[in-house]
Amino acid sequence: MAFALAGKGDFRPPIDVSFFDSRLSESRALFERALQVVPGGIYGHTSPAAGLPGVFPYFAESAEGCRFTDVDGNVYLDFMCGFGPIVLGYRHPEVEEAAAEAKAKGNLYNQPSRGFVELAELLVERVDFADWAVFGKNGSDVTTWALQVAREATGRKKILMLKGAYHGVDAWCAPGYGGIIEEDREHIHRFGWNDPASLCGMLESLSGQVAAVFVTPYHHPSFAPSEMPENNFLSLVQKECNSRGIVMILDDIRTGFRLHSGGSHRSFGFEPDIACYCKALANGFPISAAVGRNALKAAAAKVFLTGSYWNNADAMAAAKVCLQIIERENVPAKIEAMGNRLCRGLIEQAARNGFALQCTGPRAAPYPFFKEDRDLRVMQEFCTKAVRKGAFFHPHHNWFLSAAHDEASIDEAIAIASECFSEMRPSETVKESA
Amino acid sequence: MAFALAGKGDFRPPIDVSFFDSRLSESRALFERALQVVPGGIYGHTSPAAGLPGVFPYFAESAEGCRFTDVDGNVYLDFMCGFGPIVLGYRHPEVEEAAAEAKAKGNLYNQPSRGFVELAELLVERVDFADWAVFGKNGSDVTTWALQVAREATGRKKILMLKGAYHGVDAWCAPGYGGIIEEDREHIHRFGWNDPASLCGMLESLSGQVAAVFVTPYHHPSFAPSEMPENNFLSLVQKECNSRGIVMILDDIRTGFRLHSGGSHRSFGFEPDIACYCKALANGFPISAAVGRNALKAAAAKVFLTGSYWNNADAMAAAKVCLQIIERENVPAKIEAMGNRLCRGLIEQAARNGFALQCTGPRAAPYPFFKEDRDLRVMQEFCTKAVRKGAFFHPHHNWFLSAAHDEASIDEAIAIASECFSEMRPSETVKESA
Repeated sequence: MAFALAGKGDFRPPIDVSFFDSRLSESRALFERALQVVPGGIYGHTSPAAGLPGVFPYFAESAEGCRFTDVDGNVYLDFMCGFGPIVLGYRHPEVEEAAAEAKAKGNLYNQPSRGFVELAELLVERVDFADWAVFGKNGSDVTTWALQVAREATGRKKILMLKGAYHGVDAWCAPGYGGIIEEDREHIHRFGWNDPASLCGMLESLSGQVAAVFVTPYHHPSFAPSEMPENNFLSLVQKECNSRGIVMILDDIRTGFRLHSGGSHRSFGFEPDIACYCKALANGFPISAAVGRNALKAAAAKVFLTGSYWNNADAMAAAKVCLQIIERENVPAKIEAMGNRLCRGLIEQAARNGFALQCTGPRAAPYPFFKEDRDLRVMQEFCTKAVRKGAFFHPHHNWFLSAAHDEASIDEAIAIASECFSEMRPSETVKESA
Repeated sequence: MAFALAGKGDFRPPIDVSFFDSRLSESRALFERALQVVPGGIYGHTSPAAGLPGVFPYFAESAEGCRFTDVDGNVYLDFMCGFGPIVLGYRHPEVEEAAAEAKAKGNLYNQPSRGFVELAELLVERVDFADWAVFGKNGSDVTTWALQVAREATGRKKILMLKGAYHGVDAWCAPGYGGIIEEDREHIHRFGWNDPASLCGMLESLSGQVAAVFVTPYHHPSFAPSEMPENNFLSLVQKECNSRGIVMILDDIRTGFRLHSGGSHRSFGFEPDIACYCKALANGFPISAAVGRNALKAAAAKVFLTGSYWNNADAMAAAKVCLQIIERENVPAKIEAMGNRLCRGLIEQAARNGFALQCTGPRAAPYPFFKEDRDLRVMQEFCTKAVRKGAFFHPHHNWFLSAAHDEASIDEAIAIASECFSEMRPSETVKESA
């Protein structure tokens, strides 16, 4: 399949754009323009193929609190929070103000701003095991850097990660195989979640060669229910890492600071050597961070780390204030309560209509799942109906709640869900057996 | 060198912090705090070790136009422009306003904003060979993705790049070796700038295996003079790539849109298959882009590409307006004229005091260099004197000019340089021989 040059206009879009809900006419028009000038039209986690094509809106116009408006003017009660970053609600005034204040002076300099030091100090204070912090722009910036720090610190090459875990776009871990060569993953080995035998067997067979074990605080694959750690699985990982001189790296990008103001490991009773944060760190401002122990500080200083915009002062200021608000207002507890209310309501309304719904994962980032709905068709039908009625639920990615979700908005979502269930017919396999 | 856990506080900073100019007391205090909580205190291209430790300011407080103020209140006439991104001057009102307008509605959504499509359309219109565009946050995001697109399109593994070129922080190309393993660079081969024999020899010996050749529009290593292409070197690279079905990737991150509003290849008479942009794209807002030909669109759609913040609407809006201003006001011509004035003045003043100064590279991003100053000591002495007098020049990285530099500020810089030269004593080796 050699590469050959060709003229403009000979490319056919890979996605069927023939079906669109009529309420999405502006989304459709923009997407058709996008297909002309962007491979696939929209890529990555916000691509139509990753959601419900023709049913989910393709472009957003504005957002506030726990609602967003698409380019057609349709308003949605949102349960994705920008796929995680929005932890306090869209356009949180205090975060916006702090960022604007930093930005008004300038933003990108030849040097970092004061906020760089203040944010590092705050993270070291906030995260119990952390002695230092560094910052990037993407989650991948810090997960890949952490991998390199582990290799530098140990002089070993092998990296163990969970089957089905997402650690970013870099070749060692990216989902999919486009452009990836086997050498990219030559030293990457995958063990099973809640499967000590699989981990320990691997550690034995690779004895003395493992630099790092990557974990998530709980297992949150896409297209499958979340799984919490069982039988102190993560403590066991920690014990094995500690006794073998392996760096335990926590990828806490998905839910860091949403479940616990000190990082998600606090909710699950273990301590990694490095933790990676992103998403909820700054309520939508672009910044990621890694924190770690002093024993790794010298190795960390040797691994090259930089980017054109990494010192942007506004994102540092936003992160600082966001972390302060999360602790001051006990945001994790508030979000958990609203998540509980939502999940309880959804399960009740589903059951009333003959559907056995389970909410897996933490309540702050639930992955709802219909029993026996292996191909996710029931969930897709439910989310299709819901989005048309103004509730934005995702059929195969965990949802996110924010501090902007209150009892009224949760009850509104439950009412929409109830309407959806009443219009759906449970098949024999998904029927509530209770 | 096995990794072993240790308690807090046993780390010694790798950088001597015992010497600081007295004017940097607040920089020093902040850096001492940073050393406690950040590996190396400050990392990457803004680290003290990358500049003049104890002489360059460590933290910035504010900036406007072509000047910045450090945390001690010292004001500098700036010739680094945030290491490139600031192409219109710090806090350019029109860019800031466009970004603020986009941001006022929200910024990070579950979907891209209209600006995503508009910016892709503008890039495709602006860059002559481009049929499509994609966006990231870091330069590395798009250079590494482009590498993968080339592998996907060709089914080959080998990547050729220039000796001494910088293409980002990823393991295949990062400067330095911390945390890098040999497998990371197993398929990376380096040819010499302006050296057709070295390129062609490599293409012959790796015949049928090369996916991509990475080039820069001119050679801009750190710690060495810039080198322009000679004897149509880049046209030759293009010809070889075209005839062998190899993807020619232009890393135009350093000077893209600063030398020519249509991309730097326009200044040097060649056409790549993919070009990568960052820095000057949005005057400091965090965004990068890759553009390419239709023949690569299907492969591009197959290579995974995403990030938590890549749809931030403010950066898209900023990039759009920044590109418009660059063309509308013919910013490259303006910057070149000011660069000419600066270089001419510096060379004259140097000569008057017995120093043979050369300005290498394009005038918009000059790398000044004292003849025979191989260890850069004369340049370091010059930059040390200059920064103390309020002109921020870099001793071993190319400088950057912006549209905010006018004749008065250039003349002010030349006057400072003149003072510096008059205080320096040329050794025999660096003496002006004319």
